[in-house]
Amino acid sequence: MSTLNTDIAIIGAGPSGLFCAFQAGMLGMKSVIIDALAAPGGQCHALYPDKPIYDIPSQPEITGQALIDALLLQNQPFAPNYLLGQQVTMVEGDAGNFRLKTSLGQEITAKAIIISVGSGLFMPNRPPLAEIELYEGRSVFYHVSDKQKFNDATIAIAGGGDSAIDWAVALGPQAKKIYVIHRRDKFRAMEHSLQKMMALVAAGKIELITPYQLHSLNGENGLLREVVLTDLDNNKRTLEAQYLLAFFGLKTELGPLETWGLESHKNHLAVAAHNMMTSKAGIFAIGDISTYPGKLKLILTGFAEGALACHNAYNFVFPNKALHFEYSTTKGLKS
Amino acid sequence: MSTLNTDIAIIGAGPSGLFCAFQAGMLGMKSVIIDALAAPGGQCHALYPDKPIYDIPSQPEITGQALIDALLLQNQPFAPNYLLGQQVTMVEGDAGNFRLKTSLGQEITAKAIIISVGSGLFMPNRPPLAEIELYEGRSVFYHVSDKQKFNDATIAIAGGGDSAIDWAVALGPQAKKIYVIHRRDKFRAMEHSLQKMMALVAAGKIELITPYQLHSLNGENGLLREVVLTDLDNNKRTLEAQYLLAFFGLKTELGPLETWGLESHKNHLAVAAHNMMTSKAGIFAIGDISTYPGKLKLILTGFAEGALACHNAYNFVFPNKALHFEYSTTKGLKS
Repeated sequence: MSTLNTDIAIIGAGPSGLFCAFQAGMLGMKSVIIDALAAPGGQCHALYPDKPIYDIPSQPEITGQALIDALLLQNQPFAPNYLLGQQVTMVEGDAGNFRLKTSLGQEITAKAIIISVGSGLFMPNRPPLAEIELYEGRSVFYHVSDKQKFNDATIAIAGGGDSAIDWAVALGPQAKKIYVIHRRDKFRAMEHSLQKMMALVAAGKIELITPYQLHSLNGENGLLREVVLTDLDNNKRTLEAQYLLAFFGLKTELGPLETWGLESHKNHLAVAAHNMMTSKAGIFAIGDISTYPGKLKLILTGFAEGALACHNAYNFVFPNKALHFEYSTTKGLKS
Repeated sequence: MSTLNTDIAIIGAGPSGLFCAFQAGMLGMKSVIIDALAAPGGQCHALYPDKPIYDIPSQPEITGQALIDALLLQNQPFAPNYLLGQQVTMVEGDAGNFRLKTSLGQEITAKAIIISVGSGLFMPNRPPLAEIELYEGRSVFYHVSDKQKFNDATIAIAGGGDSAIDWAVALGPQAKKIYVIHRRDKFRAMEHSLQKMMALVAAGKIELITPYQLHSLNGENGLLREVVLTDLDNNKRTLEAQYLLAFFGLKTELGPLETWGLESHKNHLAVAAHNMMTSKAGIFAIGDISTYPGKLKLILTGFAEGALACHNAYNFVFPNKALHFEYSTTKGLKS
């Protein structure tokens, strides 16, 4: 796979990242846009494609997907390179000469980087148990990708929300026994799902263990043997179980970005308000991932931040050329 | 005329001001929008209604007028009060309790003010002549509103561009004599207009006085008698003339805003980047009129500034209520 040489590497294909490619094009800069999802659009595409958005200026009502489609159409004159279904796994070098690599092995050189990864990566909340990482991927899971693995198994499911209940119901018929562990007596789940669970409780497939919390894990070589619980009075109870499925919700994380050495503030990248640059020269951050005094997490704010980042990234792409500000209506689409 | 009581008084109905009214509405605040022009839209409506704009996010190509129409439609759910064809002539009071008056006598109370007057007022460049203000409006004009006034008159027209040539040609037939004074020998005007002027020169109606500049005015009680010129070697020449029409282009000015005591920087209002507030509490400025480090004069930037100003103006409108940030897609149009 040959290296892609570009001016601006935009990480994240949500609305801010997409419009950023347009702005780059208006200033005569080439761009690539990298996104972990298989399609562009970020949350607009993945989480609310059909929900109306009301506060895009000049669009009284537009769905998430229609917004993305319009932004893709607007980008066409500049034909940015979309690298989808891959994450940036490596960044090296400095302003004017960055080298990036993606999880599909694509290598990229870029003169500036603009990060627009929205809320970052959605990651499961992990229970704070000693040495839990030794079991993760073998006996402890935060989501289910292969149901067959759980045939005739004894499973501890921890959590009191929809995910915990839904998976207890889904795996109940095929498992040998399922324990549902929750720190309260009441569950926060759809009534319909709760009724199905109670039917499996009545049939002896599911046992509810409440109010209990996870305390520790016992096992060898990543294979779980026992899950130890405590009640509110700190009395211990031990369950034999081969698997623990923990459903404590999702949090957002910077993910691999954490290792780039960029200054962050409460899981956001700190940027200078006057140019959107992070603590590393030539790396900018826009949209929901960036923070500065007065920041509003609105899509329309991300658009303006992208324009500002591009006007400042220009200095790294064309270090010897002054940027002459022009209106699009005067200049048209070609620079 | 009864006083209008509102939350936010928005001064200027260009794209930034219009979208600002939408943002105010989203936050449950009432607004009025005041503009000197008879129709909303500012420069988009008055200067380039048919020119395509390419950099409105999600609008690959939209004309100035279509953008304004879309913003007006987007405002409809909140029905802001449009006060057109009038200027704000007076502002008194403080944050939470401003009183405004317009040139049509409309009185307004508002808890916060957002200024979005674009480039400000377009004003003629005045030649730097001693006591010229004594003649303005009687013998010295920067635009022509009543042609009849110049019947059989001797007129000095100063300037070398389209306005000077066009008015020399237009008034030539009816005037007794026209002097066209320009500091260069060459004129910057349409070839077609120049040919018409040269025909009137040949007919003895127009005399070209080049390269000469204005030096001083002689006359009494606002009535002009002589215009004194100098050439490049500082030799003087005196012309008898009843009128001076000076066409030295337009500049933009803050106009009455200058007297409000707001901190300004090179004809722009200085605001804090984190909230868009001017040097006076409760008065905000957005769009082309405002300046702060990193400012880009883009329409899309004005939109984001309007959202930021409204989120901060909220504190003056509802001083005892915390603002809970919500996405439009979650909340809908009613607060």
